[in-house]
Amino acid sequence: MINVGIIGYGYWGPNLVRNFFAAKDCRVKSVADARPDRLQQLGKIFPTIIGVKNAEEIICDPDIDAVVIATPVSTHFSLARKALANGKHVLLEKPMTSSVEEAEFLINLAEQKKVLLMVDHTFLYTGAVQKMKQLIDGQELGSIKYLDSTRINLGLFQSDINVLWDLAPHDLSILSHIVNEQPYSVNARGITHTNNEIENIAYLTVNFPSGLIAHFNCSWTSPVKVRMMLIGGDQKMILYNDLEPTEKIKVYDTGYNYSNDEEKKQVMVDYRTGDIYVPKLATTEALLGMANDFISCIQEIKQPLSSSKLGLEVVRILEASNESIKNQGKEVVLEAFTIPVS
Amino acid sequence: MINVGIIGYGYWGPNLVRNFFAAKDCRVKSVADARPDRLQQLGKIFPTIIGVKNAEEIICDPDIDAVVIATPVSTHFSLARKALANGKHVLLEKPMTSSVEEAEFLINLAEQKKVLLMVDHTFLYTGAVQKMKQLIDGQELGSIKYLDSTRINLGLFQSDINVLWDLAPHDLSILSHIVNEQPYSVNARGITHTNNEIENIAYLTVNFPSGLIAHFNCSWTSPVKVRMMLIGGDQKMILYNDLEPTEKIKVYDTGYNYSNDEEKKQVMVDYRTGDIYVPKLATTEALLGMANDFISCIQEIKQPLSSSKLGLEVVRILEASNESIKNQGKEVVLEAFTIPVS
Amino acid sequence: MINVGIIGYGYWGPNLVRNFFAAKDCRVKSVADARPDRLQQLGKIFPTIIGVKNAEEIICDPDIDAVVIATPVSTHFSLARKALANGKHVLLEKPMTSSVEEAEFLINLAEQKKVLLMVDHTFLYTGAVQKMKQLIDGQELGSIKYLDSTRINLGLFQSDINVLWDLAPHDLSILSHIVNEQPYSVNARGITHTNNEIENIAYLTVNFPSGLIAHFNCSWTSPVKVRMMLIGGDQKMILYNDLEPTEKIKVYDTGYNYSNDEEKKQVMVDYRTGDIYVPKLATTEALLGMANDFISCIQEIKQPLSSSKLGLEVVRILEASNESIKNQGKEVVLEAFTIPVS
Amino acid sequence: MINVGIIGYGYWGPNLVRNFFAAKDCRVKSVADARPDRLQQLGKIFPTIIGVKNAEEIICDPDIDAVVIATPVSTHFSLARKALANGKHVLLEKPMTSSVEEAEFLINLAEQKKVLLMVDHTFLYTGAVQKMKQLIDGQELGSIKYLDSTRINLGLFQSDINVLWDLAPHDLSILSHIVNEQPYSVNARGITHTNNEIENIAYLTVNFPSGLIAHFNCSWTSPVKVRMMLIGGDQKMILYNDLEPTEKIKVYDTGYNYSNDEEKKQVMVDYRTGDIYVPKLATTEALLGMANDFISCIQEIKQPLSSSKLGLEVVRILEASNESIKNQGKEVVLEAFTIPVS
Repeated sequence: MINVGIIGYGYWGPNLVRNFFAAKDCRVKSVADARPDRLQQLGKIFPTIIGVKNAEEIICDPDIDAVVIATPVSTHFSLARKALANGKHVLLEKPMTSSVEEAEFLINLAEQKKVLLMVDHTFLYTGAVQKMKQLIDGQELGSIKYLDSTRINLGLFQSDINVLWDLAPHDLSILSHIVNEQPYSVNARGITHTNNEIENIAYLTVNFPSGLIAHFNCSWTSPVKVRMMLIGGDQKMILYNDLEPTEKIKVYDTGYNYSNDEEKKQVMVDYRTGDIYVPKLATTEALLGMANDFISCIQEIKQPLSSSKLGLEVVRILEASNESIKNQGKEVVLEAFTIPVS
Repeated sequence: MINVGIIGYGYWGPNLVRNFFAAKDCRVKSVADARPDRLQQLGKIFPTIIGVKNAEEIICDPDIDAVVIATPVSTHFSLARKALANGKHVLLEKPMTSSVEEAEFLINLAEQKKVLLMVDHTFLYTGAVQKMKQLIDGQELGSIKYLDSTRINLGLFQSDINVLWDLAPHDLSILSHIVNEQPYSVNARGITHTNNEIENIAYLTVNFPSGLIAHFNCSWTSPVKVRMMLIGGDQKMILYNDLEPTEKIKVYDTGYNYSNDEEKKQVMVDYRTGDIYVPKLATTEALLGMANDFISCIQEIKQPLSSSKLGLEVVRILEASNESIKNQGKEVVLEAFTIPVS
Repeated sequence: MINVGIIGYGYWGPNLVRNFFAAKDCRVKSVADARPDRLQQLGKIFPTIIGVKNAEEIICDPDIDAVVIATPVSTHFSLARKALANGKHVLLEKPMTSSVEEAEFLINLAEQKKVLLMVDHTFLYTGAVQKMKQLIDGQELGSIKYLDSTRINLGLFQSDINVLWDLAPHDLSILSHIVNEQPYSVNARGITHTNNEIENIAYLTVNFPSGLIAHFNCSWTSPVKVRMMLIGGDQKMILYNDLEPTEKIKVYDTGYNYSNDEEKKQVMVDYRTGDIYVPKLATTEALLGMANDFISCIQEIKQPLSSSKLGLEVVRILEASNESIKNQGKEVVLEAFTIPVS
Repeated sequence: MINVGIIGYGYWGPNLVRNFFAAKDCRVKSVADARPDRLQQLGKIFPTIIGVKNAEEIICDPDIDAVVIATPVSTHFSLARKALANGKHVLLEKPMTSSVEEAEFLINLAEQKKVLLMVDHTFLYTGAVQKMKQLIDGQELGSIKYLDSTRINLGLFQSDINVLWDLAPHDLSILSHIVNEQPYSVNARGITHTNNEIENIAYLTVNFPSGLIAHFNCSWTSPVKVRMMLIGGDQKMILYNDLEPTEKIKVYDTGYNYSNDEEKKQVMVDYRTGDIYVPKLATTEALLGMANDFISCIQEIKQPLSSSKLGLEVVRILEASNESIKNQGKEVVLEAFTIPVS
């Protein structure tokens, strides 16, 4: 039985509490939030869980094995550092930290302390992403040529992070999970319409050595909600529409072959469109899968699907996107990774 | 009665012939195409039109008042120059030319010769774009903050121009038509998957002094066809889905206001979502509207909706996008216009 | 403060408990269910509510003011009769009873005992139905000519009632709520594919003296879920798609006028299609609105939106549909109402 | 080479002319229409075809082998009778005739005269219907349990036939084509909103001995256009949405099995939902396929896909639907067929 303490009972906190409550071999002992009304809300729904005011009460509780941190990103590093230093296993909400430096520090500290450090990239536990991963690993799509994601809606303007840090982590975690190649550079362009430094619309391109291109369109100011990703291989292509209630994934037997006609100095392209296949997806709740992975990886001392290394990759791309935006979209080369992704 | 000759009877040519055939005060005298099977096809459907092998036969025909050029882009300049020099009115298919230099040369030549030079940006004549223009001019949307366009499908790979030159002119012409502001720079990133220099996927951002941002997602390698544009004002927003058979335009009474809380150093944002309105659109054929505009502007010596100045603006952005793509997405500042757009 | 007891903690019970828990001036004292695992489940989520095995413990509890009955339809009558006889206010799940006779008996008993008898037709409390009611009452649609409803999916085959009794009550309650006219007859045709007497597909037509026609397509054996209703007036028409996340109601400025050309013995019809309007809907939870209506009608001694009279109307149509199905679809005239609907 | 004359150049006539023009081994010699403006229109597009005023000029033309009749239904019988009597092959637009008696007379006459009599049920030649036929014949769906069709829009009110005779022939021809069972009865209910005897909304149920039920929802007064058919087998189910540009047919691996629990007097149902498959469809023009079938069946003396027997079946159901509507929806048993369908 793993005793869990959860820090932060805001928008996402109740979902975490509910799922860790339901997870196997896990007991939610306490939840910390400085706001009295949030703790009162907690007490009404989960009378057996202790509500505390200070994160410290969880981080220092000798009873607690694992700490879940669901607070604003800017506080992730200091809370996680203390918890890791106290020998707690740590689950961080996405994005992992505000910088690559912080993320690398935490990864090293967790290794030293021999505890688990994990990042909650919930999408990796959805039936849709698992099916896509399976199809891609099974070579159904052939060689991946592009990933194109649109994640827009009329969203809550964040006051500490821009729209890429808010929305792109979902798609970047999917990219890292399903593509077995390291990106070499990014370009990003964004704009703020609220007279501050925080972009509410931004476009990010991630470039790969093989010619794979990934693009992310993020906005808090769209009148319609769109959650759409295209993944194109040279054999087949996937349309992933997360708003479809059941038909989230469509696999198109669509592609093209080309040959270079040396004489005419032309490229000859053969097109192919065929059947479409809509696989049935697992419908288990993704967040429960994530909670169970966290608990069982603690117990079995192994790395989870949504590892700290993957969390670091996401932060590395986000950090580079900041630099590109501040430099009018110029290409920013990603530094070589100092921590190898297993 | 204006006598018209049409050069090029390929993919788009039959549509031009059919609509100039139906246009007011207009006679299609001859059509030029070097391919015998195309002329045979012409003869079957339009037995009264003369098919000729050489463009020269049209350009030099003293009977012909106006020349429509529907050939590959690389040939636009030389054909149009000859026709203008011969005192013909000229309609060019989009994009107008391969370079800003060529476009400016033709504009100057047409002014000198006192003939009409026009570019066929057909979309400007659709009920959808006309309704959007009307709403924006009527201040329904407030101040325009962004335009976001996706135009993707499994498309014919062109052998002379990349995907931006092929697909983006439609959306760039709409941008120029509905926005009363000059862009100052572009960023573009693209990739070729056919081992040549011609990008089949590309992303273009057009930046404006006011903070308006416009983004264009173009691809020949999508398994699904998407024709979607979002235009966001600070009062209302438009979703334009050109694939909807009747409900192409949706006007969302959606917006947000913000205030800067100086003390807390925070931006406070108020959101608003209200009713949606789907205006009825005119259903006249856009291409016929374009043909009629060309003929009547010749007769009345005035400038058409889809003017050569607008055509030049589109080429200017495309040319800059080329430079940005070849420089890994770096910002390219648009030169000051040498020809004022009226 | 009204003390409530809830009988039945199956599929719908937890929703009732949760919403009566949240309702104003209301305390959920106890819940009855014969199944130990259901009561255990209750205790886990609502530790303050008493779980009891027998409905009698609720019906005879002098502390309890109002009884909510969420059990199979066949048990509604005997449970409600006992509760009413004991002076309790009663809320019945839909459909109200298995027969008109039972429903009329309960209505008379409630009047005699001066307690409230109400039926939970939840849809009447949705933002969508409230908006439609408002538009129709405001004469926006003109005279109502038809209502056409499709409610199909791969559904749980019920063992005691057929698909009409299971699915149509929602749509019939909407019909009764928004149309101010008494139907005079019904036709219904159905089929069972499970070798018993319980139809899994059925079609119901409800005929009105004015020429208004209402049609209901219900199935448990559709591969896709459809929840669609068309309401056509002679001025405007409504499309109500309950599966749309936000745009549930579309109001079409569509109609036609006709004139009889006496000479030609022909009808001349003028068609009209105009703008579409998608009103913003209230997003409060319908079931909570229903619970609040029940409680406040008890307190203020008035009739609720979802009255027992309306519940009776629904049962009257369902009972007639049974007779029609058993007689190969022949028209069944609805008997004159013995209880006037206020 | 078969010489064809076409009678009627109204709404559908130009499509027939265009496709017989393109058909193999076929020459369109003349077209008859009493309206001068229609003949003028013909001359503009097809200068080689002779326009004539009277149908007689075609029916009596010794040069003409085959007559295509695209006039109002009420004239089908007399025109076809004359043409057949003159030894012409005849193609009738749908519905074949105004009554079963007429249809049977024509079928007998054609047999006597040894000429081909065919009905243009164009849908049988679409890629969608051909794929459904192939799937059903290949036992992919198992035993067919239901067919449910909705064909509604704001449509032209016909002055001679009701909405069922206008819209249902398409769906009834598909029913007859894909289902290998004779229906035994129909129920229909309809309403007129134009103060004449011509229903603008009608619902038709066709009942089969095996328990298969087919239902048709037809309306000229819907604000939205719907063309949707569900076909449910006990193994798989099909959704056919004719308005989808490419994904018209979806095959659902969805079904249920049941067993009768004798002890509990209950039916136990097992549900199954699996993958969905969207087959690629042939995109050849259906009307051209029909025209080619007509010509080649004349040449090879064989029966076409869209035979006169199938046309008769459609009329038989329509005639019975009239009787049911005029008798308030009562079941009308279909008479035993006097002409065996091969």
